[in-house]
Amino acid sequence: MTGVAVLGVGTSHFGRQPDRDLVALAWDAVREAFGDAGVEGVDAVWVGTVFAPAGVAQRVLRALGITGVPVVTVENACASGTTAFAEACEAVRTGRYRRVLALGLEQMSTAFAGAIVPEATDPEGRTGLALPALYAMSAARLLHEDAVTREQLAAVSVKNHAHAVHNPRAQYAGEYTVAQVLDSPMIADPLTRLQCCPTSDGAAAAVLGPAAGGADEVVVRSLALKSGAAWNHRSPHVWGHDIVRDTAAAAYAQAGLDTLDDIDVGEVHDAFTVGEVVTTEALGITAPGDGGTAAASGVTALGGKTPINPSGGLLSRGHPLGATGLAQIAEITWQLRGVAGARQVDGARLGLVETMGGGVSGLDGNACVVTLLERPR
Amino acid sequence: MTGVAVLGVGTSHFGRQPDRDLVALAWDAVREAFGDAGVEGVDAVWVGTVFAPAGVAQRVLRALGITGVPVVTVENACASGTTAFAEACEAVRTGRYRRVLALGLEQMSTAFAGAIVPEATDPEGRTGLALPALYAMSAARLLHEDAVTREQLAAVSVKNHAHAVHNPRAQYAGEYTVAQVLDSPMIADPLTRLQCCPTSDGAAAAVLGPAAGGADEVVVRSLALKSGAAWNHRSPHVWGHDIVRDTAAAAYAQAGLDTLDDIDVGEVHDAFTVGEVVTTEALGITAPGDGGTAAASGVTALGGKTPINPSGGLLSRGHPLGATGLAQIAEITWQLRGVAGARQVDGARLGLVETMGGGVSGLDGNACVVTLLERPR
Repeated sequence: MTGVAVLGVGTSHFGRQPDRDLVALAWDAVREAFGDAGVEGVDAVWVGTVFAPAGVAQRVLRALGITGVPVVTVENACASGTTAFAEACEAVRTGRYRRVLALGLEQMSTAFAGAIVPEATDPEGRTGLALPALYAMSAARLLHEDAVTREQLAAVSVKNHAHAVHNPRAQYAGEYTVAQVLDSPMIADPLTRLQCCPTSDGAAAAVLGPAAGGADEVVVRSLALKSGAAWNHRSPHVWGHDIVRDTAAAAYAQAGLDTLDDIDVGEVHDAFTVGEVVTTEALGITAPGDGGTAAASGVTALGGKTPINPSGGLLSRGHPLGATGLAQIAEITWQLRGVAGARQVDGARLGLVETMGGGVSGLDGNACVVTLLERPR
Repeated sequence: MTGVAVLGVGTSHFGRQPDRDLVALAWDAVREAFGDAGVEGVDAVWVGTVFAPAGVAQRVLRALGITGVPVVTVENACASGTTAFAEACEAVRTGRYRRVLALGLEQMSTAFAGAIVPEATDPEGRTGLALPALYAMSAARLLHEDAVTREQLAAVSVKNHAHAVHNPRAQYAGEYTVAQVLDSPMIADPLTRLQCCPTSDGAAAAVLGPAAGGADEVVVRSLALKSGAAWNHRSPHVWGHDIVRDTAAAAYAQAGLDTLDDIDVGEVHDAFTVGEVVTTEALGITAPGDGGTAAASGVTALGGKTPINPSGGLLSRGHPLGATGLAQIAEITWQLRGVAGARQVDGARLGLVETMGGGVSGLDGNACVVTLLERPR
């Protein structure tokens, strides 16, 4: 136990919102989180973003009336939001600050003319691989090794889009069939459009403070943050597997878990369908080799043994990079409080959040954050 | 006392180096810092940068062979380097990690086609004020109030360029006269070119660890990080004064200083000459109203009562944004060890570092870090 509680959470709507600026998106998230936490201010702020311009944190916070407190902006690729959460959690744990806001935000629809390609971020990595292509290579390898089928990959999209039907803040939702997913336009073989997260704008926030022991309090049971090892092209695992496995191992050890069966629900990094397959295996939620069948068999669906991405995940909720991790935190907080409505996992007491970012740095992931949230009683 | 020691420091050369990429610059800084600290690796890294592309930290660290450890990239305008230092210091202080690298880097010569103007970073602040113009407004107000003269402003440039003659890593140096400074091309009235920091590329690093009590050990006596209040256009002080004053007050209180006379040497944020005038007053190193006369009278020159910017400061060493704060840390570390050569402040035992960033956010500074480093015996 870290002694840290999630006092309040909030998010904007997620979706293409080019006419709403980052201030408007952050306002929605922070207003809800402050109201939820019952606070009118905080002692410090960590902001996670990848592509927002320098100085955006202070500009946005000024517009929200949050000035004069320490502010640190962090970047850790797709894990920027959960990195902000990790740093805020650490500040509360150590008594550095008492009330801390973690805010994630990103406006993808206006940040780029086109795709995020390695050339834009890594002059050494001019492979021409945009991120869908990077994940597609993992999927192609798993197909080649008979570790997964195209239909099993598509089942992840079917599951998460169906979950999102019950999430009014999600960008996309729908009752698709495997055939419909496979028939959607090809983005990067074997990943079709419905297997790729959409371009999104959004913000999400959490207010953290010392745990007081309240009956309905959601607490941070454990948290681990790692960066990847240098990528090994002869690895027995696809890209991104080992960093998730190792970060999770650290979080599990810190939590002192007896069994992973104690995990009731998870929000994990399904930027592409293959990501969820690899991640659930790396996390140990599915056994080695069972990641492919989990969605199709219903194990990771609402009503299954360990529902994964009840919010709809990145595939459906959308993926505004800096906001994603804190949207995951918000979803698990709602699940643990039992207020997730039609997507509620009955009796959820222990929830997992995993975010992994990077892909163009020659590392097995730039950063991964795994945290376990709990409602102890 | 924080219980944190600066185990090693290093910097690249500072200057226009468009042909050397961030990896090459970081290599110089980290190799020197690791050698100085006698370590071959660290347990975690904080990287400070403002304009380097997302993911740069992991890309640079991979090239340096530093992988698999937690990495967090921070942005806090011109205080990004000292923010990385602050977060690294906190991690050691609380026992989160044992050996931590703080690395700052920036390549200004290739990051921009032209000046840094508010439009680039603040869609709400389209004032047309580039940063020299922002500082020029402060200078113009002080001139109007007879708080400073043009010659006194120029004397800051004369002093710091003369200091830099003894700093082989500085971008510019020279024995100028006040008349030469005033006769250099006007950038933003009343600030002439020799009163503005140059466009620079560079990196700087520090390795931190638990203080062991060694005789020559440089320790972090105190550290404070703040962001500015909303800017008050009716303030009795010019922009940036109050955030420096308040951050310093927190650092001094934490240190339990009896008198500011104990401060032997300082590196402060002289991005423009007027910045040093305002900052030395805000820090209390010069009395209210005496900031203008300090450089001209020799009080803040090498050999004076409290030498300020013995390295040459931003005006001479150059100002690669993310690197600056850690270059200041390196200079004060060298001063406290007594290894600063011809620019050594005799018997320096307590040194101050101050960095302040921002200016286009409607705040009295986006962020300020003030730290006191000490060689206790």
